[in-house]
Amino acid sequence: MTDLPRLRLKINEERRLREGHVWIFSNEVDIAATPLKAMNAGDQVLVEDSKGKALGLAIVNPNALICGRLFNRDSAHPLSASLFVHRLQIAASLREQWFTEPYYRLVYGDSDGLPGVVIDRFADIFVVQLSNAGMERLKSALVDALVKVFKPSGVLFKNDGKMRAVEGLDSYVEVAYGEVPDRVALRENGVAFEALVRDGQKTGWFYDHRDARARLKGLVEGKRVLDVFSYLGGWGVQAAAFGASEVHCVDGSEKALDQLMRNAKLNGVESRVQTLQGDAFDALTALKQDGERFDVVVLDPPAFITRRKDHKAGLQAYRRINELGMRLLNRDGLLVSASCSMHLGRHELVDVIRASSRHIDRQAQIVHHGHQGADHPIHPAIPETEYLKAVFARVLPI
Amino acid sequence: MTDLPRLRLKINEERRLREGHVWIFSNEVDIAATPLKAMNAGDQVLVEDSKGKALGLAIVNPNALICGRLFNRDSAHPLSASLFVHRLQIAASLREQWFTEPYYRLVYGDSDGLPGVVIDRFADIFVVQLSNAGMERLKSALVDALVKVFKPSGVLFKNDGKMRAVEGLDSYVEVAYGEVPDRVALRENGVAFEALVRDGQKTGWFYDHRDARARLKGLVEGKRVLDVFSYLGGWGVQAAAFGASEVHCVDGSEKALDQLMRNAKLNGVESRVQTLQGDAFDALTALKQDGERFDVVVLDPPAFITRRKDHKAGLQAYRRINELGMRLLNRDGLLVSASCSMHLGRHELVDVIRASSRHIDRQAQIVHHGHQGADHPIHPAIPETEYLKAVFARVLPI
Repeated sequence: MTDLPRLRLKINEERRLREGHVWIFSNEVDIAATPLKAMNAGDQVLVEDSKGKALGLAIVNPNALICGRLFNRDSAHPLSASLFVHRLQIAASLREQWFTEPYYRLVYGDSDGLPGVVIDRFADIFVVQLSNAGMERLKSALVDALVKVFKPSGVLFKNDGKMRAVEGLDSYVEVAYGEVPDRVALRENGVAFEALVRDGQKTGWFYDHRDARARLKGLVEGKRVLDVFSYLGGWGVQAAAFGASEVHCVDGSEKALDQLMRNAKLNGVESRVQTLQGDAFDALTALKQDGERFDVVVLDPPAFITRRKDHKAGLQAYRRINELGMRLLNRDGLLVSASCSMHLGRHELVDVIRASSRHIDRQAQIVHHGHQGADHPIHPAIPETEYLKAVFARVLPI
Repeated sequence: MTDLPRLRLKINEERRLREGHVWIFSNEVDIAATPLKAMNAGDQVLVEDSKGKALGLAIVNPNALICGRLFNRDSAHPLSASLFVHRLQIAASLREQWFTEPYYRLVYGDSDGLPGVVIDRFADIFVVQLSNAGMERLKSALVDALVKVFKPSGVLFKNDGKMRAVEGLDSYVEVAYGEVPDRVALRENGVAFEALVRDGQKTGWFYDHRDARARLKGLVEGKRVLDVFSYLGGWGVQAAAFGASEVHCVDGSEKALDQLMRNAKLNGVESRVQTLQGDAFDALTALKQDGERFDVVVLDPPAFITRRKDHKAGLQAYRRINELGMRLLNRDGLLVSASCSMHLGRHELVDVIRASSRHIDRQAQIVHHGHQGADHPIHPAIPETEYLKAVFARVLPI
């Protein structure tokens, strides 16, 4: 057994862990037996039930509601370079099975047994986001493991996530190994892109919509497409590469749109891609006033609901943008309506589409449900690991 | 306006219809104003709200809980050969957009604006299932419309569904037009099959799992695959065609397995396919006792929950079959767990996988969510139109 400090749970509080979950809430800890507040954020502990039976190893944060995250049910092996190597190999073997090229999310936190770790792979470049103090402490061991398993040319810490403050961690972006250019190449569904790994959103690219974007193939040929909240053109440039006659991309960021046009050029489709910088709601309203119509409208907004208490206002925002998008469709049009809000249920998004269609006197058929790809595996005990929706709706006259 | 009889709703009972739903329940009808019981199953009516405002046209059945099904919000056009032509064309244009070959569900009931009508297309052969008295009455107009739009070589009525008795309809299978052989060819995901359209299950083939089956490509190459409840080999023969080294198919029906081997031969993969006739639970238990192991196990059972009151027992059956299947997996195995029970939620199936994996001390990652294909569009106001799940789970040692 390990000589790590113990974290003892109150009676019956081990049940959720036994059922597969990996989070420990602070009210579940027997703080008389094992004073949680005396521990430091990032300490590794041996979790035990009320009778002292070992449940596994966890990283703690005494200051957070989720005060512990189990990373190993085998209590013999704490976090170390060798456990990182093992976990990275298991994670990589899943991705290698599902994807033919080395562009994917390599590690997706709890789902890959590495709480607080996200790693996106761009061939030889790895972008790492750490969001807890335990992983922050072990970051050099993690980089060592990455170097050992993948022989990267560069590893970047993009450690500027919002959750870091809760763990008492500062925000920084720095090269941890080798060299990392500002723009990093990737290919998704056969289409070439460059991601902005230093200054872009999150790790620089959103691999999670890969499967849904692949679905555009065959549906956009010769079609007029609108890509709203386009970022670097994940949807729009792929639509153009799949044969769309004309793609209009709307985003609030000039920098993102500049890179989007670079991405269009990489695929030789720049003549069929146009960008429009501005607020999406305003832009869609203006397009409607100008009498514009599209065959396919893609809506991939940022999370309108980031906290549960924003649910009502966020739902209204989804409702507004979906109705705006739907109004721009031709008679038999395709709406691709995405949401990355964990707090918005898939059935709620379908209902947004239903309500929007009825409101403008049209009818919708839900023809495809897109999910996050296999490189974002869902932990079956942690509903929070599933967040992405891409609902494809055919919208017809009544 | 039409001269059809009126069906008046009680006050405020029009709300669900206005929101997009198409079903009318018998307790919502103002039977004093419009005596429902005096109508005949299959009559067309003009539905109106409590103030007499027209809501659209419906088919009624005074003897059923769902006493009316709206088929048109435009009250000017009752069911007729020309409305059938219109609806068939709209349905066909969706399928032609999503599929490159003429093998698909052409009409999926309420979702395609044709309540009680299912039509599966096998190139020039159309298999029709009617489940309400209104459509039964109009069946010759429907066949006329099919002939006009598609110029089929044969149309078969496979009118033997369980719901027909509720409508006072008898059960029969008969050729409605041209000629229909016992075995009808189709291709799914590039793999050739013959369906048993006269003696098989439902219309003879289950097109609904097409997308999920396509996902086997790349995941089964060189792998040992078990296909449980195989029917004609939709999963198993495709797995063999996609390069599986060995596929074992389990089904209760000798006749289905004979056709499965014919299907294997059609693709030249019969040397890699074996069949095992018998009860699936018994067969999986026996395979375990023999020490057999597989890389991929597909479970595609018939609906274990057909009525809401069977939920508990059915859930247990899903639990048992998933645990049996999971026990047969190699160390890093893929479980494809399907359910066509409308009464089993997707989250419940994920939870079955979670519980099964914990029970045998393994851990699961949900790596893909398969849904019914675009030829089974979901009506956004009718949750019952969504029924199919295919959850892909990677199962690892703890």
